[in-house]
Amino acid sequence: MSIVNHQIRLAGRPVGLPDRNVWKFTEENVGAPNDGEVLVKVLYVSLDPAMRGWITDRKSYIPPVGIGDVMRALGAGKVIATKFPGIAVGDYVGGRFGLQEYAIAPGKTVNKIDAPPEKLPVYIGGLGMPGMTAYFGLLEVGRPEPGNTVVVSGAAGAVGSIVGQIAKIKGCTVVGIAGGAAKCEYLSELGFDAAIDYKTENVFESLSRHCPKGIDVFFDNVGGDILDAALANLAMRARVVICGAISQYNNTTPIKGPSNYLSLLVNRASMTGMMVTDYLAQTPEAQAIMLQWIKDGKLKTREHIVDGLNTFPETLLMLFNGENEGKLMIKVAAD
Amino acid sequence: MSIVNHQIRLAGRPVGLPDRNVWKFTEENVGAPNDGEVLVKVLYVSLDPAMRGWITDRKSYIPPVGIGDVMRALGAGKVIATKFPGIAVGDYVGGRFGLQEYAIAPGKTVNKIDAPPEKLPVYIGGLGMPGMTAYFGLLEVGRPEPGNTVVVSGAAGAVGSIVGQIAKIKGCTVVGIAGGAAKCEYLSELGFDAAIDYKTENVFESLSRHCPKGIDVFFDNVGGDILDAALANLAMRARVVICGAISQYNNTTPIKGPSNYLSLLVNRASMTGMMVTDYLAQTPEAQAIMLQWIKDGKLKTREHIVDGLNTFPETLLMLFNGENEGKLMIKVAAD
Repeated sequence: MSIVNHQIRLAGRPVGLPDRNVWKFTEENVGAPNDGEVLVKVLYVSLDPAMRGWITDRKSYIPPVGIGDVMRALGAGKVIATKFPGIAVGDYVGGRFGLQEYAIAPGKTVNKIDAPPEKLPVYIGGLGMPGMTAYFGLLEVGRPEPGNTVVVSGAAGAVGSIVGQIAKIKGCTVVGIAGGAAKCEYLSELGFDAAIDYKTENVFESLSRHCPKGIDVFFDNVGGDILDAALANLAMRARVVICGAISQYNNTTPIKGPSNYLSLLVNRASMTGMMVTDYLAQTPEAQAIMLQWIKDGKLKTREHIVDGLNTFPETLLMLFNGENEGKLMIKVAAD
Repeated sequence: MSIVNHQIRLAGRPVGLPDRNVWKFTEENVGAPNDGEVLVKVLYVSLDPAMRGWITDRKSYIPPVGIGDVMRALGAGKVIATKFPGIAVGDYVGGRFGLQEYAIAPGKTVNKIDAPPEKLPVYIGGLGMPGMTAYFGLLEVGRPEPGNTVVVSGAAGAVGSIVGQIAKIKGCTVVGIAGGAAKCEYLSELGFDAAIDYKTENVFESLSRHCPKGIDVFFDNVGGDILDAALANLAMRARVVICGAISQYNNTTPIKGPSNYLSLLVNRASMTGMMVTDYLAQTPEAQAIMLQWIKDGKLKTREHIVDGLNTFPETLLMLFNGENEGKLMIKVAAD
């Protein structure tokens, strides 16, 4: 084989928002898979807020991407060579393929996607990592009960939009916090009971108005002032799910801790972190449930697909500027 | 009856540390109990960090003390008149008697103390509200397992000293954080495995050294930088118990939220608030267990008793200056 593989590698550690200088564009010939490996032609790569953490040189749940390494990314693609039994040429698969056109991966680390290629984006979004984060974060950590008031921040995003819809399916009153009229309109379309535009509203006051009995479950994707506004509106024995803090990831000053954390004491409430990777064993079952909700029209997903791997540096910033509408991903190649 | 009752009332809302001007000293004749009430000669009043919250005009777990009201306080005393069946003249009782020499209280709100009068301080401390806070906060919220590493802040205080000793009884490695050599020496006497003097040590580094496998349970009484240092040292699935934040109660600037709260996410950890009043039904059983530990020499309590109700304004400040050694209380009168 003599296929050229275009890659995006980490050139240096960013300070604040990562600009194009943080990345290096390289190319090399594609190799052949060894025993137990598969060669995947990458069709889509997933752009996630977690990427900002992966390029920071700090102890976390996984080691940071090394300088010079191909940037870590989840994705979906088509197998074009295999030395792993059970995965055949032509299979569609998901996995951690990185920011590149072709990836060689251990067969046991990829998962077959039993769907036509046009459905791959859904398996990166609503049925992928963000969807599973929403499902397990809400149901296992947030533990909403019918009649509860559930509030989600980053509500129009890949995780938040699913959280709110699952909470509705479970019989809760759901309030979403998002930035801008278009996103708030989208939340109404999804069936949220109320939407708060943090760009124009006082979030604390709007939460007080929309949650007269207090917030039973707060699913937080953003941190900062919005987390504080939610903490100040908790109901007794509330559960705060810490999924992310996108407002803080590009800080060049220390992270803003939640000043209102003593609300946990007054309300006997809890704030708990979660990582979707803890739920791999239960993922197929959750995917089946969510696929059925999609088929039944109870759950809608939305993907924001940008064309071309080389747009990555600018496309990534859409996440931090709140410009994406739905799960953000790049289409790397046609099938 | 014509007994004069000396009282301390709230004269105004403090900014920062409450000085003597916040209080008003009054006297009035003692009345007689109505049906269902008892008249108590107060022997001891309990001085607690929570008092600072009770005099702030802010929504909390109980309404603030009103301007002109007798200051709220727990205490112990002797019944000198009764119109409540089941409580007799001469009984020793605990209850919320306020800062005064004599209190009339509904009989159903007081609890009989079956102990000689010289033991009353223990029923205000280790077997009272602070001891129960330690017991339920550690065991019900912190849920330590044998072999766990348990860290407690304010470790030489009324709650912290009990938390550490119960954790030792439960087979944990226990590290205490306190201010000054004398307090750290006291922690050694109590059997703590290590003591960190926050006045002279880098708490983050000392925690890293004493907790090489991370902190499984952090019981926090102080908040601020010490909470942040502990969050940065959590083990996977750690439990942080939020009991108080004495470092922040007299702030004239906003409370310092924990900048390192995203450690909850990385470590799938939880931070949970607790209030001892949620455990009233289980209190007698816990007291019996702790009384046995005291008799067996496994649990030591220490009381810091100051003479004279009129010392209250200055004695209260000992709590916030870290000057008390053991449970702080005022002896109001001899039996």
